[in-house]
Amino acid sequence: MVTTTTDLIVRYAETDAQGVVHHANYLVWFEEARSDFLRQLGLAYSDMERNGFFVVVSEVGVTYRSPAFYEDRISVETTLAKARRRLLEFTYRIRNREGRLLVEGRTRHIVVGPDKRPVSLPKSLLEQLTTPPA
Amino acid sequence: MVTTTTDLIVRYAETDAQGVVHHANYLVWFEEARSDFLRQLGLAYSDMERNGFFVVVSEVGVTYRSPAFYEDRISVETTLAKARRRLLEFTYRIRNREGRLLVEGRTRHIVVGPDKRPVSLPKSLLEQLTTPPA
Amino acid sequence: MVTTTTDLIVRYAETDAQGVVHHANYLVWFEEARSDFLRQLGLAYSDMERNGFFVVVSEVGVTYRSPAFYEDRISVETTLAKARRRLLEFTYRIRNREGRLLVEGRTRHIVVGPDKRPVSLPKSLLEQLTTPPA
Amino acid sequence: MVTTTTDLIVRYAETDAQGVVHHANYLVWFEEARSDFLRQLGLAYSDMERNGFFVVVSEVGVTYRSPAFYEDRISVETTLAKARRRLLEFTYRIRNREGRLLVEGRTRHIVVGPDKRPVSLPKSLLEQLTTPPA
Repeated sequence: MVTTTTDLIVRYAETDAQGVVHHANYLVWFEEARSDFLRQLGLAYSDMERNGFFVVVSEVGVTYRSPAFYEDRISVETTLAKARRRLLEFTYRIRNREGRLLVEGRTRHIVVGPDKRPVSLPKSLLEQLTTPPA
Repeated sequence: MVTTTTDLIVRYAETDAQGVVHHANYLVWFEEARSDFLRQLGLAYSDMERNGFFVVVSEVGVTYRSPAFYEDRISVETTLAKARRRLLEFTYRIRNREGRLLVEGRTRHIVVGPDKRPVSLPKSLLEQLTTPPA
Repeated sequence: MVTTTTDLIVRYAETDAQGVVHHANYLVWFEEARSDFLRQLGLAYSDMERNGFFVVVSEVGVTYRSPAFYEDRISVETTLAKARRRLLEFTYRIRNREGRLLVEGRTRHIVVGPDKRPVSLPKSLLEQLTTPPA
Repeated sequence: MVTTTTDLIVRYAETDAQGVVHHANYLVWFEEARSDFLRQLGLAYSDMERNGFFVVVSEVGVTYRSPAFYEDRISVETTLAKARRRLLEFTYRIRNREGRLLVEGRTRHIVVGPDKRPVSLPKSLLEQLTTPPA
């Protein structure tokens, strides 16, 4: 299983009136971490869409342990936990600079074509997805 | 168990380049539906915060079945599935105007005080939360 | 000049760590108010896009006078200030329930086709845009 | 006048159904670029708030020239155009990797204390704001 790490700095717009990062933004960070996962493996999700493979979120689970604050330096550890031709599953662990685990999550995806019907990922792509970056 | 319904119209800013509502926005709709749930019961979450009760999201689960599109008329059915003094759990069913089930979800919450330590909701508040609107 | 009014309630996700509505969200409210302006005139922007007319934001100006807070009841007064075949300009006045003017704004738009090239709106559509709702 | 450059990669969640970055997100990028401007000068906006100086947006102007797309590499050039003790003004030029100018903008800010009343920035802070990074 391939794991990558993506760093980001909390934006002011990502906070809410409780003074912490609004819980919906972790899904945006998961998505951003998936994009970066692909880039670290030499792929680009924008290319996948141009080639007619649209990865759609079918399920999400998040556990919130500790809040993140504006300007915190955050790392997202992303693991491709399952890679089938029609289903991908990623898990995430989000930590702050002190290494404290803030949030854990899991997302499931199906792959559809331009007509929104399920399609299979090419085997070559699956192999690339499951080969750690050099 | 009390259930309320909240209606909304999909905003353009809620869509993404796949032409559908971005999956993170359903968490925002869940939250908005919770606010409306309270208002329909004669409560206001802004009052709860002013009284020192901050309801924090501790867990989220979402299943995405079918997409929503810009200007779709959406209804969110919100049920308070568990109401303990230190834990609340809501479930949600989101449908479009044709009645098609688009998304199902579940959120768990703990209650904290202004110092971020767990506190118990007053019994009177719990009773109000579990009494259907007149 | 046609003016319409659109009401909304501030969402928690629209606030930031300063405890007020984040300034970028007023652009989302302007956009939502434009959508509602069209609906009040018997039009729908989703139909316009289906007919190949994409209204694109080319310029925005906002003056922030007073903050809005979570659960505030907000009204957006929207005026179509200019309606040419290739250019639309809207102005906005946002108030809270006490009638206090919170934000004023202006947006300019050009109209493009599916190929992103400028196109002219049909005269019949312009007439509809400049005829007050019954 | 000090100018800094901030790089970012377009997130999927920042796009809308027109397939391009939603126009409200440029305000978020301006804000992020301001945060980074301060960090490049050895300051941190989170420290300023902890010291009781809240920088509030009072005016915004944006001209949109060309769209940005998912995964585009974007640079934001940020200039502190005016620095008075009670007023700051920034200008921005956003370009893509090909150097094409996408968006220009301007934001005005006032400084308020924890009680939301206008306050003056300390002279030492103003000096730091107007001294280019080493």
